[in-house]
Amino acid sequence: MSTVQLKNPHVAELDVDHYYHLGFDSSMDLKELFGGVRFVLYGGSNDRMLNIAESFAASFWPLPLGQKVTPIGSTTRYHMFKVGPILFFAHGMGMPTFSIMLHETTKLLAAAGAKDVIMIRIGTSGGVGVEGGSIVVTKNSVSGLLEPYYDIPSLGKVIRRPSVLDQDVHDGLLAAAAELGLTAVSGTTMSVDCFYEGQGRLDGAICHYEAADKLAFLQKASEAGVRNIEMESLMFGAFCQELGIKGGVICTTLLNRLNGDQVTMTPEQYKAWVGGVVEVVKTYVAKTLGITRKD
Amino acid sequence: MSTVQLKNPHVAELDVDHYYHLGFDSSMDLKELFGGVRFVLYGGSNDRMLNIAESFAASFWPLPLGQKVTPIGSTTRYHMFKVGPILFFAHGMGMPTFSIMLHETTKLLAAAGAKDVIMIRIGTSGGVGVEGGSIVVTKNSVSGLLEPYYDIPSLGKVIRRPSVLDQDVHDGLLAAAAELGLTAVSGTTMSVDCFYEGQGRLDGAICHYEAADKLAFLQKASEAGVRNIEMESLMFGAFCQELGIKGGVICTTLLNRLNGDQVTMTPEQYKAWVGGVVEVVKTYVAKTLGITRKD
Repeated sequence: MSTVQLKNPHVAELDVDHYYHLGFDSSMDLKELFGGVRFVLYGGSNDRMLNIAESFAASFWPLPLGQKVTPIGSTTRYHMFKVGPILFFAHGMGMPTFSIMLHETTKLLAAAGAKDVIMIRIGTSGGVGVEGGSIVVTKNSVSGLLEPYYDIPSLGKVIRRPSVLDQDVHDGLLAAAAELGLTAVSGTTMSVDCFYEGQGRLDGAICHYEAADKLAFLQKASEAGVRNIEMESLMFGAFCQELGIKGGVICTTLLNRLNGDQVTMTPEQYKAWVGGVVEVVKTYVAKTLGITRKD
Repeated sequence: MSTVQLKNPHVAELDVDHYYHLGFDSSMDLKELFGGVRFVLYGGSNDRMLNIAESFAASFWPLPLGQKVTPIGSTTRYHMFKVGPILFFAHGMGMPTFSIMLHETTKLLAAAGAKDVIMIRIGTSGGVGVEGGSIVVTKNSVSGLLEPYYDIPSLGKVIRRPSVLDQDVHDGLLAAAAELGLTAVSGTTMSVDCFYEGQGRLDGAICHYEAADKLAFLQKASEAGVRNIEMESLMFGAFCQELGIKGGVICTTLLNRLNGDQVTMTPEQYKAWVGGVVEVVKTYVAKTLGITRKD
């Protein structure tokens, strides 16, 4: 059993640590509230994370008649939910907003004394050579320059950190998909700061290249092992690696970028595609925690 | 009168352009809905932008009894509001999430034929040598390396764009503050991708430096003209500059980073501080549109 660790001696010097964007602080009884947390599931949007939390509750920890899952902490910046030993946090879009949440979640769990915590991002992404509705489990992440590092300027100098996710979590998610008879691809995820130019789309407000240039780059990325593109996993892997957190990323793809740029799937498709990924994560969580489904 | 322009010939080739994250598309009667838009006010959080929209409605376009401001478009990713010729959009935290919104807002306004649009970010920030509750109007933005450029990898190569805000908007916001008897500082804004290490905080989950290193860097930034730190304006200035959009940034500061890192102001202080900035923007908008307050 290993507790969540920080790499910052200064935190211990604070009388009270305010996890400002979450709306919790270290004067609360965090051990009681969060000491038993074993999983943190992250995703982009508030609605999606509520749906996922409700789905986990229905499968493993059914709520009594007259009760429902409701946000915890502050709802100003993020929506967060807790069901059993699992936190469900909506991180918004992009590495910076997710980074804030990761710092504060990790500090909160360290203060709570949580043990053997696994963090998984459940995302949406653009596929590269895989069709919409595919499941991609991230083996490693690369930047828009196809480099496996996350660069963050700090005190005027760039800190470069390798982005490394956990092999066991990766393998466990793939095994869970196989158990369900779902096809999941293991691959490299390209992780960038821009949905349009940063992903080589032709449909942004600014575009300085032609369709052939875009396809040549996506082809190059595909040959380098890239199977999907999103906007968070590179920083997530760097953060997990730095702190020894077991992290995983599993995404559905909303389209195949080799065929187009616009996201036009139906709400029903979106629901079904995300639902598939959620079932995979449920299966992995159940196996890890040694629990069985009640639905 | 100048209409909103794109720098992308490919958009004209789309049968229907889906502004996916906003929940609008070009098959709608955008000219009717958005053709008259003159201002887009951006800010981080949904709650804050609703409050600001309601405050503008009360001052300039009072709603009939029994009606209230309600979100437009999709609420999955962002909350957006419209009052008179003004859009109020919550962009979340960080440049990537704001970038998505800027691309889609600009495409929507271009399709609507909107003219002479001014975009202003109303933000919160950490002050550098100015106390909590101060107003900073951004003269220019710099990166965490104190460089006035925004770098975005696209098709495997870094595109470097200067970040330039509009001088008239800057001057107009300062004049509006002066008219209200409020002190507003004009200065450089440092704009970064991380709330903790990226801003030299000592209270993140990871911190590899000491208090003296942090203060030395903040002092260096201060000497370079930096008066506040936030996470959006550098990309915003680069986007506006590239498309010839008149953009401005006005922030309240929540603390003086030379004195600490934790954000601990009271809700009442927060409300009053943001309220001051909103009054400045109201005064500037009223003067620009030639309208008078009704409250």
